[in-house]
Order: sequence, then structure tokens, then C-alpha cells
Amino acid sequence: MKPAHITIKDIARILGVSPSTVSRALKDHPDISEETRNLVKSFAEKVKYRPNALALSLRKQKTNTLGLIIPEIVHHFFSSVISGMEDLAYGEGYHMMICQSNENYYREVINTQALLDHRVDGLLVSVSKTTRDYKHLHNAIENGIPIVFFDRICNEIDSDRVITDDFEGARIATTHLIECGARKILHLSAPRHLLIGLRRYEGYCQALKNHNIDIDEKLVLKCDTREEVMTMRQHLLSLAPEIDGIFAVNDSTAIAAMQVLQENGYKIPDDISVVGFGDGPIATITSPPLSTVEQKGYEIGREAVRLLIQRLENPTVQLGFQTKIVTPTLKKRQSTR
Amino acid sequence: MKPAHITIKDIARILGVSPSTVSRALKDHPDISEETRNLVKSFAEKVKYRPNALALSLRKQKTNTLGLIIPEIVHHFFSSVISGMEDLAYGEGYHMMICQSNENYYREVINTQALLDHRVDGLLVSVSKTTRDYKHLHNAIENGIPIVFFDRICNEIDSDRVITDDFEGARIATTHLIECGARKILHLSAPRHLLIGLRRYEGYCQALKNHNIDIDEKLVLKCDTREEVMTMRQHLLSLAPEIDGIFAVNDSTAIAAMQVLQENGYKIPDDISVVGFGDGPIATITSPPLSTVEQKGYEIGREAVRLLIQRLENPTVQLGFQTKIVTPTLKKRQSTR
Repeated sequence: MKPAHITIKDIARILGVSPSTVSRALKDHPDISEETRNLVKSFAEKVKYRPNALALSLRKQKTNTLGLIIPEIVHHFFSSVISGMEDLAYGEGYHMMICQSNENYYREVINTQALLDHRVDGLLVSVSKTTRDYKHLHNAIENGIPIVFFDRICNEIDSDRVITDDFEGARIATTHLIECGARKILHLSAPRHLLIGLRRYEGYCQALKNHNIDIDEKLVLKCDTREEVMTMRQHLLSLAPEIDGIFAVNDSTAIAAMQVLQENGYKIPDDISVVGFGDGPIATITSPPLSTVEQKGYEIGREAVRLLIQRLENPTVQLGFQTKIVTPTLKKRQSTR
Repeated sequence: MKPAHITIKDIARILGVSPSTVSRALKDHPDISEETRNLVKSFAEKVKYRPNALALSLRKQKTNTLGLIIPEIVHHFFSSVISGMEDLAYGEGYHMMICQSNENYYREVINTQALLDHRVDGLLVSVSKTTRDYKHLHNAIENGIPIVFFDRICNEIDSDRVITDDFEGARIATTHLIECGARKILHLSAPRHLLIGLRRYEGYCQALKNHNIDIDEKLVLKCDTREEVMTMRQHLLSLAPEIDGIFAVNDSTAIAAMQVLQENGYKIPDDISVVGFGDGPIATITSPPLSTVEQKGYEIGREAVRLLIQRLENPTVQLGFQTKIVTPTLKKRQSTR
């Protein structure tokens, strides 16, 4: 028999506040006054309150189910993540239920609630692009369901996380172009208000700096889809005579740029070397096959499940939150010299 | 108040047989003797047994969740199916839980059980390639959970079904090549023991017959992956001088063949027209873009959910099982004249 543990509800009853106040006070939520926070925390310490034991006692039984909320399963990166998650989860006796948010905040909220209703043991979440409010995820944690965020993390929730080192990936890609002899390197970039846009741009700049090459902002174009390359083809072609390398923020942009250049008589990689980011299956069938940065979705998926299971199987141990950074590697093919 | 309905268990108790005997007798399962089948069926008729009402009464409450079991979500076709399913399901107030079997029978069984444990209202299933035993799916139906099969159906379970007309897709593709002037058409085919291999081959033959072109078995090659094209490149090149069209059983095979021919000086479509099957995103970025047969995954997904919801929302109506055949269409691009 395990000893009975004190719960958030017990603390709330004794102190005469709501359970959500207790929960938020324990997390140092800024909506709760400092006085209340200190009161709750010192009381919780006195009664040896342990959140994970509570979580366990609140839930009637373990279902051995992990719930996954993912923006778009059609993307090669996300389907690699799913494979990595499933391989580890099934091997450890868990199974997975997948819900697609389709980059839609509303669906993400419904999915979260549905997975909680179906009593999953824990959640793996990559946040949708349209999500600005995280109440549904806070709610899961308050219900004792741990979350591991991966790829698109939520900064305002303390949690385990697994992310790609976008800066390092971009630095490696750009360094490879420099080592191939390129000096005038065009960067086709995502908007810098997006984290991947910013981090990949910074990695590009770092590689140039490391080799004493000046950053020329004329050679950084906001252009991150095939369609945008087609729209900007004239501008791209006007820059082509003076560049000898391209680092694109994703593979489809790299491939589109390569095709526009080829159709206009440029030889890849003889005239211009091209590197993408992502390593989807398309990169292997282009002519020439595309050198690119491999994002390691499979490894990210495994790592996220490993963190989640570790937490689920040690409910009475107070584990600190971890952030795992997975470093991408270069996949050298024939689009670079 | 609804009247109480008689259940399979009631019938079993009264007749002194097991519930599974009753269930199988009602389905004319060959394992049950004709005598028992007749006995059970006439008794069920006498007591006005209605299977769907039973299903409803067995389940404590509707969860508005549809469970999906799909072989591989990384495939463009399957992810289109999922989009179609989700768009209709969310619109109708249902949400979806997706489990990937990864073409693994064992995972399919675990997934089915997990979805039943989590009390989904109904199942959408495309059977894994390695599944030979269907007990897990029979079990779902006996528990009152209706199944709609799509794409890879299970012939031994009576159920609603949504399938692609592979014969017609292949006939359209081959007819298009003939209308482009091709007469010597190579078919790169899947093995004929697979239904899609057989049906697409038959559609190819039908188109030739319709245009009084003799079928030349030398021009039918078992070759359905990019890797196989590369292995067979010499044989392909030995046939190239005498052919003027290629119909490949899928896009990646079509694209690989196109690239081998181009690397050896053949012009596509001037020398040889090429058509694929599937219409994944890769078809749009090859040079030239690939003409192909669009499989309509989105429509198949919507149709499957429509059939399932219709059944869930009319539990007391005895609906006959339906098979919906979705006809693919030709997507004409620049790889055909």
C-alpha cells in the first residue's frame, strides 16, 4: 500500500483558496500575488506536497497511451518524428494516439480535450502556428498529465522539450558552401519573426563571420516557398551572375531555385552550389540530388518519448525539466562541389 | 424512454449457445453449421433483434470520436485521406484519433484494442499489408463498433467500404497515352498477386484492346520502385528505342524511368510520353512535370467518414452495407505530348 498523498484540493481547502490558485501559486504564476505564492509554497513544503504523486493519485489507472498533437502529418519531418516516437513507445509497452491540429488553434484545443477525456498518460505536443493561448495545455498539466514539447515549443509552460539546433544546422550548411569555394552566398530565408527564420539566418551569418566574409544584406532574400521563388525569378536571375552558392531555409525552396537557374543555363554545382534544409525524400530525386541539412525527426521523436516515459515511470521522483537539443548533420550530395 | 432491445447475449442465453456463435450465425459465417445458422436467424427475426440498436445499448455513451487505423501516414495518399476525413469529421462535431500500423499486423491489433478501450464510436480502417487474420476487427464489430474500410479493404468482413477504381485509373492513363499518339506502351507494373497490380494491369490491357493495339507481354515489366528502375536500367534502355509511351504503376517509378531515359539522351515527351499514378507532390516538381492519375485521397477520406457518421447517427435503422467506388482522374502535365 502506498501512503495517501496530500493533493492540491486538500491544500486549497485548508488554506481557503481555489485549487487553481494553489496550482498557479506553486508554479510562480504572475497572476497570483507574492504573498499568496509564499503562503502556498511554504505550506506545500510543510505538508510534503509532491505534484507527481498527486498526478498519479488523481488518475484512476494507467492506460499506457501517449497522446500526440502534431501540426501536419503530411510533412516528412513530422512523419519521421512519429516513426521515432512509435518505435520507442511500442517497444516500451505504450501505444500512441495521434491527433492532427492542421495548424488550427481550435482543433488543437479539441484534440487536447479529447486526449484527456480518453485518459492518455501523457502528451507529446508540437504547437500549431496559430496558437497564441495555452490554457488547454496548462489545463492538461494541472490535471497531472505531463507534456513533452518538441520542435515548436511553448515558452510559457515549464516542461521537458526537444528541439532542433537550427543555428548549428545553418552554420554547418553555410560552412560547407564556403569549403566548396563559395564566397558570394545567397540566403533564401524565412521571415525573421519566426524562430527558425531567425536562427537559420544567424547560423548563416556566423559561418560567414568565421571565415571573414562580409555579410551582404542584398544577398539575404525573404523567400521560403517554391511559389515565392517563381514569383521572384527575375530578381533571382539578376543576382545569379554574382553568386556562387545558395543556402535555402528549406528543401523545396532550394530545389525551385536550382530549377530556375538550370532553365536559364546555369550549371549546378559548377556555377553555383546549392544547399537546402530538411532532407525530405524529394532531395534525393532531383537532378543533381540536393545537398541538405538532415533534421533528424526520428531522433527527436525517440528523445521526446524517452523523456515522457521517464517521467511517467518515476511519478514520485521530482525530476527537473530537461531541454534536449538535437544537432542536425549535413547530407552531402551532388548539388555542391 | 426508448424500449429495451434484445441483445446477442440474450439470444445466446435463450438458445444455449455462445454470443460469438450467435454473432457469426447472423453473419452467415461458414464456421457455423447451416442448422445453427437457420435456428439463430429465425429466432432473431422472431424477437425483432436489431444489431445497431444493440450496439447502441451496449455502449454507455457516445464519445464523438472516430478511430482511424492507417498503414503509413508518410504517404501522400494516406495523408490526403486523413485531411478529407478530418475536415468532414470536425465539421460534423466529431474528432479523430489516428493510429499508424506501420504495415505491422501486431501494431494493428494493439491499435484496434486501444481504440476500443478508449471507447471510440466507430473505426475507419485500411488494412496493413501483413494482416492475414481479422479477429481483432471482427471483435470490434461484435462489440457494436461499426467499421468503414477504405483503400485496403477486408473481404471477409461485411462492412461499408470506399475504394479507388484502379482499373479505370489505369485505363484512363493508357488511353491518354494512345491519344497522344503512342502505340508501343511500356507498362511498369506492381506484382499481379497484389490487387492494385492486377487491376492497373487490366486497365492498361483494356485501353489497348479498345484501340485495337495488341498486348505485348514483353512490354509489361514487373518494376514498381525507384530502386528497381535503377537495377533494371539496362533492360529499360534496351527497350527504349522501340517504345513511345510508358505507363507506370506509381509516380516514383515513372519519375525514375523518365530520369534514366533523359540521362541517356531521350526527350520527354518528344520521344517518349510518360504517365504515373498517384499524384503526390513530387509529380509537380520534376522536369518536365509528370502527367499522372490523381487518386483522390481527400474524397475517399470524406466519403468514408460520411458513411460512418450516417451509420452512427441512425443506430436504429437497418442500413445495408455500401461500397463507394471513387474514380480517379487524369492530371495532364508536360510529360505527355
